[in-house]
Amino acid sequence: MLKLYHAPQSRSTRIVQLIHEMGVADQVEVHRVVIPRRDGTGARDTANPHPEGKVPLLVHADAVIRESNAIMLYLTDHFSGNPLGRDVGAPGRGAYLSWLAWYGNVFEPLIVMQFCELSHPGLDNTFRDMDTANTRLAEALSTHDYLVDDQISAADILISSTYAWAPQLAPDVPIIRDWIARCLNRPATKAIAESEMAAA
Amino acid sequence: MLKLYHAPQSRSTRIVQLIHEMGVADQVEVHRVVIPRRDGTGARDTANPHPEGKVPLLVHADAVIRESNAIMLYLTDHFSGNPLGRDVGAPGRGAYLSWLAWYGNVFEPLIVMQFCELSHPGLDNTFRDMDTANTRLAEALSTHDYLVDDQISAADILISSTYAWAPQLAPDVPIIRDWIARCLNRPATKAIAESEMAAA
Repeated sequence: MLKLYHAPQSRSTRIVQLIHEMGVADQVEVHRVVIPRRDGTGARDTANPHPEGKVPLLVHADAVIRESNAIMLYLTDHFSGNPLGRDVGAPGRGAYLSWLAWYGNVFEPLIVMQFCELSHPGLDNTFRDMDTANTRLAEALSTHDYLVDDQISAADILISSTYAWAPQLAPDVPIIRDWIARCLNRPATKAIAESEMAAA
Repeated sequence: MLKLYHAPQSRSTRIVQLIHEMGVADQVEVHRVVIPRRDGTGARDTANPHPEGKVPLLVHADAVIRESNAIMLYLTDHFSGNPLGRDVGAPGRGAYLSWLAWYGNVFEPLIVMQFCELSHPGLDNTFRDMDTANTRLAEALSTHDYLVDDQISAADILISSTYAWAPQLAPDVPIIRDWIARCLNRPATKAIAESEMAAA
């Protein structure tokens, strides 16, 4: 059995959403833990085996898998043939891996720096800027409905999740706003977001 | 045929090293391009199909794969059974994906912020700090010779590559320094680094 360590309304919410979108919720145990929150509430949870007390964390037999993009890839590869993944050798595998990696390597650092109001030429050199990132998204979405192709993948769920907690960051680009709406308004994704909000 | 777009002494050098370590150099064409360098030399190369003029970029038939960690994973999955990778379902797959993702999500942002001398509580909240990152490396290396297990993987080549261009960042932790030396002193990895340095 796979076990996911999860804190509601956190970076692990998108993993719960993916599991439901994949239709494998009966095959992944979700363990709720608490985490330190930005507002000072919460705390590290001794029940969470993540060495830094973070979520998400996935455990599968002896394997401990960290990092949202690695966990999503592990899950979609494990449940091979699931439409939310792109298996090794399948069309779209290269784009799928690229977008999952781009989220962590480029997009999330840019989002964090924007929140912290940090700028530096050395940052631009590595990460470029939000306008460049949005150009990449718009380019992909100009040729197909989702980032990899015309079918939603875990990469869409990962990247669009940013706008669930920070809708003010959605760029004023219709093709991107339409994609965000398509991703966040899916019944399973929306139901989980709403139930976590109601419980908070 | 796979095609790698590469600029010597850049982030794509580690991909060339991986290809040689994997023993597949005869199956990947390396196309040299120029890139803008931090010292003001170089420029964007119209022969480079990367939309931001970056390297590495891997092209495989219709697929264009960006981001070093995604490219390494694509290569090791494509050449399945290669000892530098950990295939889907193999022991170590979870740790392999986690370290590849961790490099881009956590380690490289920390390195860039250290170079830029930036600090902010919001950065620590997401990325923690170099001491925490080094603790993760030392923990893994205390139970096996390389990050995933006792055999080197592409994740070791990726993460240790940082210390080839920034040896001053190597922490004063013997178990980490020994691992860096083991990774960087491998004949193929060392020969490529030396030939690129000699040509520069």
